[in-house]
Amino acid sequence: MNQKIMPQDLWLDLLKIRSQAPLIHSITNFVAMNFNANILLALGASPVMAHSIEEVEDMVGIAQSLVLNIGTLEPDWIYAMRLAKTKAHIRGLPVILDPVGAGATPYRSQCVEELISKDPPNIIRGNASEIMSVAGLSGFTKGVDSSIASDDAILAAFTLAKKINGVVCISGKIDHVVDHLGQHAMLSNGSPLMTKVTGVGCSATAIIGAFSAVQPNFFRATLGAMAYLSVAGEVAAKKTILSGSGSGTYQINLLDAIELLEQSDFNSQLNMKFFHKI
Amino acid sequence: MNQKIMPQDLWLDLLKIRSQAPLIHSITNFVAMNFNANILLALGASPVMAHSIEEVEDMVGIAQSLVLNIGTLEPDWIYAMRLAKTKAHIRGLPVILDPVGAGATPYRSQCVEELISKDPPNIIRGNASEIMSVAGLSGFTKGVDSSIASDDAILAAFTLAKKINGVVCISGKIDHVVDHLGQHAMLSNGSPLMTKVTGVGCSATAIIGAFSAVQPNFFRATLGAMAYLSVAGEVAAKKTILSGSGSGTYQINLLDAIELLEQSDFNSQLNMKFFHKI
Amino acid sequence: MNQKIMPQDLWLDLLKIRSQAPLIHSITNFVAMNFNANILLALGASPVMAHSIEEVEDMVGIAQSLVLNIGTLEPDWIYAMRLAKTKAHIRGLPVILDPVGAGATPYRSQCVEELISKDPPNIIRGNASEIMSVAGLSGFTKGVDSSIASDDAILAAFTLAKKINGVVCISGKIDHVVDHLGQHAMLSNGSPLMTKVTGVGCSATAIIGAFSAVQPNFFRATLGAMAYLSVAGEVAAKKTILSGSGSGTYQINLLDAIELLEQSDFNSQLNMKFFHKI
Repeated sequence: MNQKIMPQDLWLDLLKIRSQAPLIHSITNFVAMNFNANILLALGASPVMAHSIEEVEDMVGIAQSLVLNIGTLEPDWIYAMRLAKTKAHIRGLPVILDPVGAGATPYRSQCVEELISKDPPNIIRGNASEIMSVAGLSGFTKGVDSSIASDDAILAAFTLAKKINGVVCISGKIDHVVDHLGQHAMLSNGSPLMTKVTGVGCSATAIIGAFSAVQPNFFRATLGAMAYLSVAGEVAAKKTILSGSGSGTYQINLLDAIELLEQSDFNSQLNMKFFHKI
Repeated sequence: MNQKIMPQDLWLDLLKIRSQAPLIHSITNFVAMNFNANILLALGASPVMAHSIEEVEDMVGIAQSLVLNIGTLEPDWIYAMRLAKTKAHIRGLPVILDPVGAGATPYRSQCVEELISKDPPNIIRGNASEIMSVAGLSGFTKGVDSSIASDDAILAAFTLAKKINGVVCISGKIDHVVDHLGQHAMLSNGSPLMTKVTGVGCSATAIIGAFSAVQPNFFRATLGAMAYLSVAGEVAAKKTILSGSGSGTYQINLLDAIELLEQSDFNSQLNMKFFHKI
Repeated sequence: MNQKIMPQDLWLDLLKIRSQAPLIHSITNFVAMNFNANILLALGASPVMAHSIEEVEDMVGIAQSLVLNIGTLEPDWIYAMRLAKTKAHIRGLPVILDPVGAGATPYRSQCVEELISKDPPNIIRGNASEIMSVAGLSGFTKGVDSSIASDDAILAAFTLAKKINGVVCISGKIDHVVDHLGQHAMLSNGSPLMTKVTGVGCSATAIIGAFSAVQPNFFRATLGAMAYLSVAGEVAAKKTILSGSGSGTYQINLLDAIELLEQSDFNSQLNMKFFHKI
C-alpha cells in the first residue's frame, strides 16, 4: 500500500543522501550541467559528469546511480548513454532518463526509443508532452516547457511505466508519480518561478538520481525527490517574491533552499496525495 | 524614416515576446549556454539549444528565429550552423550571427566567412574589433573584449550591412545599430559591469533573436534588443553598486532586471539617437 | 630562500593581473567553463575558451598562459590539449594542468600520463587523491571531492614536482604548494563552503593560470593564486553564513570577493607558512 509513504520516510531518504553522499553519474546536456552539479552538491550528493565512450563504463563502475538526459544530444553521446546504461544494469544501479524535448524532432524521439527499447531505465521524468511523446502518443513539444498533465498524459504515464516496468513522473504545476504496479501519487507544491530558470526540470531528474541511489523503492525515491524539490522550490519562491526579486535571484534562492530546507517546513508544507491503484 | 522608432514601439515588441514566448533556437558556445537560456527565459522567450546535424533542421522547423554563435566553434558545429541557416532561410526565419572572437584565429575568421558568404545572416552583432574583422578590415581581437567603436569600425559596420543586406550592431560603451539602407542609431546606456560577466555579449545576440522573432523590421528589432538589455544592464548596475556588491551579484541583478524592468524606467532612461542616412 | 615571499609580493602580482588583463586560454570541462570564465573576469584577467584542433595553436599564439582541465575529457579534446601544450612550450608560456578525477577511471589516468610524459606542464593542481594518482601512487578518487593531504600525499607532490620539474599544488582544507627545488608552503585559509560549489577547484587552477601569466616564478605564482582564492573564499563564507544563506549565495559572494577583496583583508587574514627545503 503506497499510503504508507509518509513525509518522514522521504526525509529519512534525504538524510541518507547527506550522510552517504552517493556518487551520481550524469550524462547530461551542456545547458544544465553546471546547475545540476550545484543542485546535487547542495543536496549533499556527489556529482560526476563523464560522457566519453572511453570511460563511461568505468565511471558507472564507481557510481551509485546513472542519470541520462538528452537535452543537447548527439550520436556519440547517445552511444555513450547506451554503454553506460548497459553497465548500470549489470551492476544493478538505478538508471533515470530525462527525455528532454522528446517529440520536438524525429531524431530526439528515435534516440529516446533506442534508450528505452532494451534494458529500459528504471525511472523516466518529463513534462506532460514529453511523457506523451515517449509513450507513443502525439503531443507537440514546444521546446522544453512544462505544462499541466491532462488525463491522457496520466494514462500515457501508466502505459509507459508498464512498458519500462518502472516509475514515470510527469512534472508540472502538479507532479504525478506513477508506476507499473498502478501506484499513483500527486504533489501540489512548487512555483511558476521554477519554469523561469533553465535546468530545473533536469535538476529534478538529477535529484531522483540521488534519492534512488539510497532508496531501492523507486516509486518512493522518485516521490521523495519531487517532494523535496517542489517544497524547496516553493520556499525559495516565497523568499524571492517577498524581496521583490526575479528569476536570477530565484536560481540562487533555490540552491540555498535545497541545501538548507528544514524538516519542519518540509512536513508542514508538503501537499502529497495518493490514489487507489488503477 | 527611422526617427519614427520610439521607445514605446520597442516596448510593444517586448510585450509581444512576453505574450508569444517565441522559440529561439540557439547554436551557441559552451560557456554562455546556461546564461543565455536564463536571459531568454527572464525576457519571456523560450530557449532551445540543439546542435546535432541529425536534428538541427527539424528544430529550426519549429523555431521562430535562429541564433548562431561561434564562441567555442568546431567543424561539426559549423556544419550544423550551415544546415540550420539554410533551413531558416527556406522558412523565412531571422538568422542572427555572433562572430565571437572573429580575427583572433584564422579558423574563426574562415568560419565566419563561410557563414556570411552564402545565405548570409539577417543580423550580425559583435564588438568593434569583431565587426571590423568580419568586414575584412584588420583589428586585433584580444579574446572577446568589448571596446569603443571608432569611425573606422562604424564604416566597417555599414560595409558589412550592405554585404549581408541586413543589420549590423557594434556593441560597446556605446552601441551602434546600422543597416544596408543607411539607417544608424546609437545607444548610450549600459554599464562597465556588463563586461565583467561572461556571456553578456552573447546574450545581447540571443535577445536580438527574440526581438526579431516578433518584429520583422530587423533594424527596429535589433535596436529594441540592445535598448532593452542596456537599460536593464544600467538598472542592475546601479543596484549592484549601491549595495557594495560585485560582478557575481551583478549577474543575478541583470537577470532580475531583464525580467522585471518597467516601461516607465525604460522610457525615462533610454538614451537613443538617430542619424541621418549616409 | 622562499621565506622572502611576503603577502605584499603576492598582492603585487594580483595588481599586475588587474592592470595587464592577461589572456588565459583554457581548454576545460563543460561543467566549470562558465564559472571559470566569470572567476577570471572578476579577478581582472581575460578568459578565452577554445578547443578545436583547427585553432588551439593559434589561440595559444595570442594567449599569456594555457590551462588544461580534464574534467569532461574525450579523445579530440585531449589531442587539442597536446597541440596547445606543445605550442605553449615553444612560446615559453606557462602551462597549468588540472587532473580532475585522475584515478577515477583508467582512461583519465592514461590521458594525464600522456599530458605529463612529454613537455610536462609547469604546474599541476589537484586534490590529494588526484595528486597521488598522478604521481603513480594509489588513492581512490571518489568523483572530484577534495580531502586532507596526508604525509604520503605531500611526498607524492614532491615526487611529481621533480618529475615535471615544476610546481605541484594539493588543495584541500589546507593547501600545499611544493616544487622541484624542495620548496614547500602551506595555506590554512578557505572554507568548507568551497566544496559545495562545483568548479571552485577548477577555478583555482584557472587563477593559477592568471598569476603565472604575470609572475615567472611559478612557485610564487601558484602560492599567490591559492592565497588569493582561499582568503576570498573565507571572506565570502563569513558573509554567507552571517546572512543565513547557503551554497547558492556562496557562489555569488565568492565571485564578488574575488573582484572586491582588499589588500588589508588579504594581508591580515592570510595564514601562510613556509617549510625548510627537504
